[in-house]
Amino acid sequence: MDQQKSVSKAVVARLPRYYRYLRRLASEDVTRISSKDLAARMGLTASQIRQDLSCFGGFGQQGYGYSVETLMIELERILGIASSRRAILLGAGNLGRALLRNFNFSYCGVRPIGAFDVAPDIVGNAYRGIPVHAMEDLETFMSREIPDIAVLCIPGSHAAETAERLVKAGIKGIWNFTNAELREDEIGVPVENVHFSDSLMALCYKIQDE
Amino acid sequence: MDQQKSVSKAVVARLPRYYRYLRRLASEDVTRISSKDLAARMGLTASQIRQDLSCFGGFGQQGYGYSVETLMIELERILGIASSRRAILLGAGNLGRALLRNFNFSYCGVRPIGAFDVAPDIVGNAYRGIPVHAMEDLETFMSREIPDIAVLCIPGSHAAETAERLVKAGIKGIWNFTNAELREDEIGVPVENVHFSDSLMALCYKIQDE
Repeated sequence: MDQQKSVSKAVVARLPRYYRYLRRLASEDVTRISSKDLAARMGLTASQIRQDLSCFGGFGQQGYGYSVETLMIELERILGIASSRRAILLGAGNLGRALLRNFNFSYCGVRPIGAFDVAPDIVGNAYRGIPVHAMEDLETFMSREIPDIAVLCIPGSHAAETAERLVKAGIKGIWNFTNAELREDEIGVPVENVHFSDSLMALCYKIQDE
Repeated sequence: MDQQKSVSKAVVARLPRYYRYLRRLASEDVTRISSKDLAARMGLTASQIRQDLSCFGGFGQQGYGYSVETLMIELERILGIASSRRAILLGAGNLGRALLRNFNFSYCGVRPIGAFDVAPDIVGNAYRGIPVHAMEDLETFMSREIPDIAVLCIPGSHAAETAERLVKAGIKGIWNFTNAELREDEIGVPVENVHFSDSLMALCYKIQDE
């Protein structure tokens, strides 16, 4: 744990992407890869890859490349996705249901254990086996099940108050899909804000030259 | 246009975030902001902000800070979101419908003009005024309406062939929500892959120390 404290945010932000490529290599039965080949696949330079991975002690062997499996396991440990996290999802509208039905939570070492909504016609349903509870039962459920992560798919206008409620009830982190940005220093637990618009804007930028 | 060619990818990747904060400042009726105050809000350093924005000629005045409106307009120009782009959405399942119903496309200067699906019970519906057409009508529609961007919300197993079909029909860029990664150098047009798992993993990493 001490080791990773000194790793820059920029490197950490790249790790899930490394992990994604390694998973794909493993699924293609590739067992070893050189930094050069990995770089070509990922659109990076070999030296950047060597530098990034050396932050974690470096798992490559000169002339032999990296063991895909060893590197995957090591990244799982570093990213903390080996220790199964329990998640609840708030807001089982279209986006919430899309995540429950289609998103591969287990890929990230996360297990959804319950969903919550205010709509009477949605409460009581289940999606991929995950039951939807009434929002008023949130605290009772949380004190019993102790979830780690809350996935916020509610309207942005309710994001701040709901986050506060979740933190008070002991949530450890918030995955925020609402259009309201939640700040870690304001709500007091780690947050990842998913901003669809950032990537659409990046795309608009890229097609300008076309 | 020449100017931005020399701007690094890392700076460009940060611009949508600047834009997001500026939009919020404007909505709070803030007209001027110093690099120091903007830095505090965004969790960056003032010198990084000055450096990033100087890549585009720098719009701040010593001692007066930045004009929020001028900077916003300039970022809209640079990001190419001022020139309204036309988008089609493929796959009107839960995720597709969530985007059509809730995502603020116009914020990014993008206008959805049609959706496509293979399910007979979805074709013919409309979401926020956007009609869902049969997938087999894609090419006819595209040759008539000339969309710029395709939003992919179909199963990952169909991503590659559909991307090929879209490129052949003249699409300029793909916003990819499938779990299949599309590579620009393979399909021939700019792509933005949206990886939900990257941000969930980043969250798992952050809550390790809690």
